[in-house]
Amino acid sequence: MRVGVIGATGAVGRELVEVLGRRRFPVTKLRLFASGRSAGTRLPTPFGEVTIEEFTPEAARDLDLALLAVSGDFAKKYAPGLVAAGVTVVDNSSAFRLDDDVPLVVPEVNAAAIGDARLIANPNCTTAIAVVALAPLHKAFGIKRVIVSTYQATSGAGAEGMAELERETRRVLVEGEKARNEVFAHPIAFNVIPHIDAFQPNGYTKEEMKVVWETRKIMGLPHLPVSCTAVRIPTMRVHAEAITIETERPVTPEAAREVLRAAPGVKVVDDVANKLYPMPLTATGQDDCEVGRIRQNLVFGDHGLDLFVCGDQLLKGAALNAVQIAERIPALQVPA
Amino acid sequence: MRVGVIGATGAVGRELVEVLGRRRFPVTKLRLFASGRSAGTRLPTPFGEVTIEEFTPEAARDLDLALLAVSGDFAKKYAPGLVAAGVTVVDNSSAFRLDDDVPLVVPEVNAAAIGDARLIANPNCTTAIAVVALAPLHKAFGIKRVIVSTYQATSGAGAEGMAELERETRRVLVEGEKARNEVFAHPIAFNVIPHIDAFQPNGYTKEEMKVVWETRKIMGLPHLPVSCTAVRIPTMRVHAEAITIETERPVTPEAAREVLRAAPGVKVVDDVANKLYPMPLTATGQDDCEVGRIRQNLVFGDHGLDLFVCGDQLLKGAALNAVQIAERIPALQVPA
Repeated sequence: MRVGVIGATGAVGRELVEVLGRRRFPVTKLRLFASGRSAGTRLPTPFGEVTIEEFTPEAARDLDLALLAVSGDFAKKYAPGLVAAGVTVVDNSSAFRLDDDVPLVVPEVNAAAIGDARLIANPNCTTAIAVVALAPLHKAFGIKRVIVSTYQATSGAGAEGMAELERETRRVLVEGEKARNEVFAHPIAFNVIPHIDAFQPNGYTKEEMKVVWETRKIMGLPHLPVSCTAVRIPTMRVHAEAITIETERPVTPEAAREVLRAAPGVKVVDDVANKLYPMPLTATGQDDCEVGRIRQNLVFGDHGLDLFVCGDQLLKGAALNAVQIAERIPALQVPA
Repeated sequence: MRVGVIGATGAVGRELVEVLGRRRFPVTKLRLFASGRSAGTRLPTPFGEVTIEEFTPEAARDLDLALLAVSGDFAKKYAPGLVAAGVTVVDNSSAFRLDDDVPLVVPEVNAAAIGDARLIANPNCTTAIAVVALAPLHKAFGIKRVIVSTYQATSGAGAEGMAELERETRRVLVEGEKARNEVFAHPIAFNVIPHIDAFQPNGYTKEEMKVVWETRKIMGLPHLPVSCTAVRIPTMRVHAEAITIETERPVTPEAAREVLRAAPGVKVVDDVANKLYPMPLTATGQDDCEVGRIRQNLVFGDHGLDLFVCGDQLLKGAALNAVQIAERIPALQVPA
């Protein structure tokens, strides 16, 4: 299959190339696209050395599959043309996620939604990580309400975000100066910033509303009450989430653990006596999302749980989920 | 007044000395007590240079006021004897907080609870910071349920906690080695650890249950449903908290802001258009707790709010609140 990664030099683009290799995706020819600035650079990949090309719609039109790790504006401008030219597109941006005729997919939850679509949206990272835990719990116990507080890594702002954390932490610790900021709204070193993406009229940020909107769409529950506080913290690449749920039917931590142990994409890490619980330190580089700290909620009683989830923002929160979507696209399957 | 700071070399002890000076507490003689290791060291203070003494119950018995910044075990062993000797004690540990005959006080909320007590408990840092925002909201709208997720600074583990964050961050960034841990259960550099204090049989940590138990006691609501997820993150000295409340009566963000603007100990920082919201960066060294991101909750509708609170763990979460308690103790007031 002729596969193109558009936005190949970004944090997600680089992970996409790695994940395609690691999962032995049936690539016959890999092409990497980026801005003119990077064009001509030769990159080692699991599929051999590849020279980065400047993206043009013409250059990309003979791909079978385009994995887009670009901005929403870019995706809006070019994805429809690629689809019209016969390219199947998995888009990592928010451009099409809420379009009624574009499936928004986390394969463990709603792979069937892909249908015969040639444009599939990859969800917001925080949402993708949350729903792998929420969907099996919903199936087993029915979810009535969801309250999420996030601890989001700088990788959510791309390679520049991670570089800013490293550079500004050095500035504080090594140079003894005040931290500065370019990528983030405020200095991120030794700080937390409760502001990711633009503020909406209701006082929530767009990142927080993405969790609301996308969780509803992926889980097929258009009216599910969801609230989120999205917070950037000084970590590198795993998003953590403290999640409180109220359930329709009674639930116990033991029953929830049993359900989650059988759930694809989930690794139950919940042995507090041995200090085992989800952490960025252990979830970094892992495909499965860690779920732990599962306990009977003190606010919703036997109809509620608290849990803590950690997922690699660049993997399940982005590149891995995109490739998992591609693996499940019927139109791309070679007939047996 | 003869004032002693017991545990004067720790992070909270050092802040206590600063706060006594800054608030012009009527100190006639300041004495600083620590372990034998530090005894003899001369320390500059706002009340002149003071030589640290090794703590013994005998040495401290002629104080009027003892501010304890020591472990719970130490407090349990020595506080009753000091009180019996006529010393008024404000204890920062958890030793007596839930004793029925010991007031647990955040002066903005329940100063009247002090009564004629000679031993007063200073609450858990996370709780103190939360209740300055929750109490006025309860008075205005009635609080039915509270869900808290915390972003707790390393200062919560004392000076050693902050030193470990700095040392281990350097180890990663400058020496290119893996972070290690002594104070915390796991490496804290670029990590989050959902584990503060010991795990309880119900799966919550003691830190989380302190928020439950102490919030109820301070607010005088023994059955208030409260749930908490307490998480250590790589910041220095401000605890942040994402708080969701359900209210008895309808509430709007505007009405809540008005109530909080009039509340003592609270600084409303809630102008998202100008990127103003609570952050450790701005709340560090501030007496007032920053409250912002106030919005109508998407889960409890017009009977709910989401908010974000930041308070300096060493000030309102510890030293400041202890001195504020001392200022309100009737037995210490000089008659006019």
